[in-house]
Amino acid sequence: MSAAANAIVAQSGGPTTVINSSACGVIQEAINSGTIGRVFGANNGILGVLKEDVFDISAEKPQIVEALKQTPAAAIGSCRYKLKSLDDSMADYERILDVFKAHEIHYFFYIGGNDSMDTADRVNKLAAQTGHELVCMGVPKTIDNDLACTDHCPGYGSVAKYVATCAMEAGKDTEALYTTDTCTILEVMGRNAGWIAAATGLACRNPQDAPHLIYMPETVFTFDKLVSDVKEVLKRLKRVFIVVGEGLKNESGEYITAASGAFGKDSFGHAQLGGVAEILGAVIEKEVGIKVRFNKLGTNQRSAMHFASLTDINEAYMCGKMAARAALAGENGKMVTLVRESNAPYKCTTGLAELSDVANGEKKVPAEYINPRGNHITEAMRDYVRPLVQGEAPITIGEDGLPVYMRFERKTIEKKLAKYL
Amino acid sequence: MSAAANAIVAQSGGPTTVINSSACGVIQEAINSGTIGRVFGANNGILGVLKEDVFDISAEKPQIVEALKQTPAAAIGSCRYKLKSLDDSMADYERILDVFKAHEIHYFFYIGGNDSMDTADRVNKLAAQTGHELVCMGVPKTIDNDLACTDHCPGYGSVAKYVATCAMEAGKDTEALYTTDTCTILEVMGRNAGWIAAATGLACRNPQDAPHLIYMPETVFTFDKLVSDVKEVLKRLKRVFIVVGEGLKNESGEYITAASGAFGKDSFGHAQLGGVAEILGAVIEKEVGIKVRFNKLGTNQRSAMHFASLTDINEAYMCGKMAARAALAGENGKMVTLVRESNAPYKCTTGLAELSDVANGEKKVPAEYINPRGNHITEAMRDYVRPLVQGEAPITIGEDGLPVYMRFERKTIEKKLAKYL
Repeated sequence: MSAAANAIVAQSGGPTTVINSSACGVIQEAINSGTIGRVFGANNGILGVLKEDVFDISAEKPQIVEALKQTPAAAIGSCRYKLKSLDDSMADYERILDVFKAHEIHYFFYIGGNDSMDTADRVNKLAAQTGHELVCMGVPKTIDNDLACTDHCPGYGSVAKYVATCAMEAGKDTEALYTTDTCTILEVMGRNAGWIAAATGLACRNPQDAPHLIYMPETVFTFDKLVSDVKEVLKRLKRVFIVVGEGLKNESGEYITAASGAFGKDSFGHAQLGGVAEILGAVIEKEVGIKVRFNKLGTNQRSAMHFASLTDINEAYMCGKMAARAALAGENGKMVTLVRESNAPYKCTTGLAELSDVANGEKKVPAEYINPRGNHITEAMRDYVRPLVQGEAPITIGEDGLPVYMRFERKTIEKKLAKYL
Repeated sequence: MSAAANAIVAQSGGPTTVINSSACGVIQEAINSGTIGRVFGANNGILGVLKEDVFDISAEKPQIVEALKQTPAAAIGSCRYKLKSLDDSMADYERILDVFKAHEIHYFFYIGGNDSMDTADRVNKLAAQTGHELVCMGVPKTIDNDLACTDHCPGYGSVAKYVATCAMEAGKDTEALYTTDTCTILEVMGRNAGWIAAATGLACRNPQDAPHLIYMPETVFTFDKLVSDVKEVLKRLKRVFIVVGEGLKNESGEYITAASGAFGKDSFGHAQLGGVAEILGAVIEKEVGIKVRFNKLGTNQRSAMHFASLTDINEAYMCGKMAARAALAGENGKMVTLVRESNAPYKCTTGLAELSDVANGEKKVPAEYINPRGNHITEAMRDYVRPLVQGEAPITIGEDGLPVYMRFERKTIEKKLAKYL
């Protein structure tokens, strides 16, 4: 690879608390390598590449780059633009390589989920076909924890720590007021996998503790079962705290929200969810006759740096670092994975998986992590998630008493090509 | 007062992050006084008194009592049972005094909002009329910060710190994804006063920062203004982050949610709100044509001990302590108030106000804290709230990586009277 070989880092999809830690690992390792020229950031992910809208991260102050580790969301900028197959999106893929060529970019680090690994894989294959020397490395990111080939995903430990704590705290609120506010529903993210909902089970240290019921997309959801579950908990405790994943499905495999008419699609063609808590709440109010409150953490659950998992931050950083290191060691077309070497004591190292294997896989909560009644988790799930939420990530507090998060200065690189998008 | 004089502590209304710190102050001061017999807790507030459902807090382990300072919600138990005037609820008031007499209770510490101060005042007056020796002291509590006679309310600093941080963090998320998820609405509590919404303005350190628009119940809300405000921010930043208080009202003084048909009443006769974010979101999607997400923190905002304000915890504790101290010094029929002696450096002491003055007052966000356009806060509001969110309250983290909160053992006191409720 030529000495002038530049690198580009892009972030994709829904932000997480730690995607910036992964970016930090890539950037610091790339800059320190001495063998990479400049490190660019793609404004808003692959859209930034397509638009040739790129800035020079290597020109940013080192303390700004270091502060990535303490900043939630996606500081480089993310997007939800989805590339299809090479045949269907050929112009886009060619444009990406044109931009790479124009700016002597020979390293592409893509931090994202399986759609992003798919894109990186296709870019890589087209580069090989067309003779542009390119190394594509993927760094895993998703709060959903549903990527194949890796024990868990950076981003998951922090959302798990936060939502479990929120369940514990709002559970205390419901316990305090159970004479009137008898039922609370906490709605959490998770389109197809119930990993986030499952994590809240860790808050339940004894049978009195919230959450009392956890519903995950992996188990067929019926309103009859909901009503009987709620009545059972009420009989025992006079209150009930429920956690629901947004992607609950009925016997026909339809989203509860879809069957209830609150359906839409996002630009990736994914069903756009939300409102599941309201739907369940309305049924409980009608069938059980108790007052129901609901909390919907929304994007706050994936950006809660103020109570992030230190383990998660460190592993996210390690994944970024290892991606750069592997690229420089001659690896290509791989995603860094997390490998749980042992659970007690917890020890986690990294491995590598083929981008295409990650792109085509999906990891749901296995049956042995869900209780037989399908309304809570098992000890095996607790053992799985417990190490991932250990430690509190340090944050810097400003004079105003609030966290201080960074923002890049963004020295934009001069465009060399015609406008594309 | 006889040497056997017992005290009772009750919590009322919506829980907060620090109401237990106030209880801790009362309990520790009462136990350490040497002049109070036993300290009882009323299971679920005034309901516990009416039902003679009382437990012995002085029999709890000291470390459990100390752990109140690190535990959110209402550990003694709260309720939303509302007593009316003496004439309309005479049986209830007489019952309260019967229970007090039966258990030699001569000190009544009531931690709550203005409804609770009203109740305490009436109980106190009836006791005086009927010759039961009683000292009634109020301790302020409300996240809404709308109590009269006090500079601010214990509970407000913590919700302010948390919601401002949530606005900052979810704001980063919106900034990262603005190409598709262009607008986020964060819905916060506040039925008649916009203090909680206003606090999020502290997160906005420069014009790029969220929240870009803050709507409070103090300003008449119109959809025309919303749409033009949103368009203006979009033009400048291509994204918009909005904070709304749940109690927004239109030109006719009706709740937006009421005018839109999603109206109900809670058992206090208050309008039961919720859904304001969805209503605003639907209008923005239709009129501006952008995608809107919403986050509704719900009861999580008033129980977020994991990121509570240390200043708030300490002041709540001080209010509890001073209530017990004042009672023992011969005061009666008063609520402890917070008095801001100076703002830079911040210095806060306590005072006393008549229960009846607190009961009949309400403190809204003053006009000088709201910008002329009615969509953000002023520097004066920042100066007011900044000292209240200083410091992070310590929490204990368990081996499972989550906070450890206490629960009383609850040694129930034997009933001496006939069943009442």
